[in-house]
Amino acid sequence: MNLRIPGPTPLPPSVLQSQTRQMINHRGPEFGKMLHEVTEQLQYFYQTENDLLILTGSGTGAMEAAVVNFLSPGERVLAVSIGNFGERFASIAKTYGTDMVKLAFEPGTAADPEAIARELDADPSFTTVIVTHNETSTGVTNPLEAIAKVVKDRDKLLIVDGISSVGSIELKTDAWNCDVVLSGSQKGWMAPPGLAFVSISPLAWQRYGKSTLPRFYWDLAAAKRLRDHADGETPWTPAITVFYALQTSLSELMEEGREQVFARHTRVAQYCRDGVAKLGLRPYADPKFASNTVTAFYTPEGVDSRDIAKQLEDDYDTVVAIGQGPTTTTTMRIGHLGFCTEGDIDAVVDALGKTLRRSPGAPTS
Amino acid sequence: MNLRIPGPTPLPPSVLQSQTRQMINHRGPEFGKMLHEVTEQLQYFYQTENDLLILTGSGTGAMEAAVVNFLSPGERVLAVSIGNFGERFASIAKTYGTDMVKLAFEPGTAADPEAIARELDADPSFTTVIVTHNETSTGVTNPLEAIAKVVKDRDKLLIVDGISSVGSIELKTDAWNCDVVLSGSQKGWMAPPGLAFVSISPLAWQRYGKSTLPRFYWDLAAAKRLRDHADGETPWTPAITVFYALQTSLSELMEEGREQVFARHTRVAQYCRDGVAKLGLRPYADPKFASNTVTAFYTPEGVDSRDIAKQLEDDYDTVVAIGQGPTTTTTMRIGHLGFCTEGDIDAVVDALGKTLRRSPGAPTS
Repeated sequence: MNLRIPGPTPLPPSVLQSQTRQMINHRGPEFGKMLHEVTEQLQYFYQTENDLLILTGSGTGAMEAAVVNFLSPGERVLAVSIGNFGERFASIAKTYGTDMVKLAFEPGTAADPEAIARELDADPSFTTVIVTHNETSTGVTNPLEAIAKVVKDRDKLLIVDGISSVGSIELKTDAWNCDVVLSGSQKGWMAPPGLAFVSISPLAWQRYGKSTLPRFYWDLAAAKRLRDHADGETPWTPAITVFYALQTSLSELMEEGREQVFARHTRVAQYCRDGVAKLGLRPYADPKFASNTVTAFYTPEGVDSRDIAKQLEDDYDTVVAIGQGPTTTTTMRIGHLGFCTEGDIDAVVDALGKTLRRSPGAPTS
Repeated sequence: MNLRIPGPTPLPPSVLQSQTRQMINHRGPEFGKMLHEVTEQLQYFYQTENDLLILTGSGTGAMEAAVVNFLSPGERVLAVSIGNFGERFASIAKTYGTDMVKLAFEPGTAADPEAIARELDADPSFTTVIVTHNETSTGVTNPLEAIAKVVKDRDKLLIVDGISSVGSIELKTDAWNCDVVLSGSQKGWMAPPGLAFVSISPLAWQRYGKSTLPRFYWDLAAAKRLRDHADGETPWTPAITVFYALQTSLSELMEEGREQVFARHTRVAQYCRDGVAKLGLRPYADPKFASNTVTAFYTPEGVDSRDIAKQLEDDYDTVVAIGQGPTTTTTMRIGHLGFCTEGDIDAVVDALGKTLRRSPGAPTS
């Protein structure tokens, strides 16, 4: 199967194989060594010296962790949304009773740092800004460096959903002053789903001390205490085989080198955008902010994305994502993060072209 | 390595190997089919027709889910504790603001149903009882059928931590009227850690409707909605490779048969208790309630369990658990749940005997 959704992504054979290692004691020295090793390698890709904690859960779990560890009911929070995952983070902040104000931008476009600045300047009671780095639902990467500057110039806490970006697209956690940055194992990290990552700046830890929301499973101070303790542990039983996979994939990514990994994603993404353009398909994302992990595009007028996706799967064993939210049936998305080559893109673009040519109302180019 | 802790447990080779299957779309028909299949097989072992939902997280995550989905701040809850995991559940209930009253029994003993009845009768405002079925920290299995009768005769909601029991020790969810029953993949299920299970009775769903606690990641109604939807999905990206493993282990357990699986645990547990007794070691658990998934015993007077555990690991590649809480250094625990035979018990008991004979102050039998 050519699995071309924006995560879970296909895994290299070495990573798949690493999961056949037998169970170990999660409170023993072997696990502790692995935990420390994986943590340091994640910090390298995060470009951070901040604490980095690994949780057993999905990326959404990490989003919940960010809310319940660093925010409080009634606290004024600006949630910047450019699509479905921005909406999700805003919903979580609202669910836990923060005084959340949503600043939404047209789907397909990036967030405008100046608009964020205006919002923050108009109401100094904002304590925190939540922003998506890479919006998987629209294939847009926000100008995070510029957004971070605006937010940090105003001394707000900056929480970044980097779930589908860190490790694939450059995100300079420390240089850009991002306080809390989230990611998930099933993205460019080339590991299966089941682990989520959270980096935490000193300012974020200060906010932890002030937060009044209850927390237990996602308690980051508990995770830090156990991680720093003797051999290194997690508070609750971790997803050990996903750790094995992550340890293997990270060692391969380390060997390739951080800049090379980012360059590879840039190259394959451009190759995908070019291929989609050659089919005469209109990109969904503003080309200035097109994502290097997922490419979204409109189906031809009158062609339902669900039909095309089904034909791709039935006839070509190729799985792509349809749109999300308002463009579910009118857009499609090709994931190209992690273990993905130009050859994989050729295969999906070729299958897509053949499928579209058979569809009524499709361009014949 | 002879890994003899009460979870994670060693995995059969077939289960390890099943994790090398490539990633699939978690929103596609293949995943949906697996989700439904695994759910039905879990229900068979749970002996329930109630809803059963699978969450990505550890057993503690399922405990948190039970609290935030079915309880409310200020609600009077009786938390029955016979050890560390009972304490943990009580802490979670307290963390989320319930008016939790703890009824603790001496570690090593089981909970007394009559004492629970007295507590409930003395204060009709209790709405809910939380109880551990099998207490891993002390090796005690509570008389759940009798406890459930007392609780359900009084129309309270019954939440059961069955994390280390269901699938290994008989727990008749429906016949005993257990409203919410939790378990975790890394126990007798012979799968790696990363998935947690929650069964939910109609009464529990009624309570869900009344609960005022915020929830997002653990929202069980969201999980049910997506599970029942079209192909069957999870709200957030699931731990797919752990699902593969669980699918394989469950098909093996189904082939063996439910009663046979329980009988095997009973047999191996008795074999372990006999072996430990032959070494002259005093059991920690009240023999009437000794667990069929973990055996806890005192080290000889003056012998530190940590030293013995370290020697077992260094000299015999055998990993056992030390005590928890007040008996950390004076008790040890041997896990015998899941993939475990009499031969594995022979190996650990033999190594333990040799190690103890070398220890100053140990019996020489």
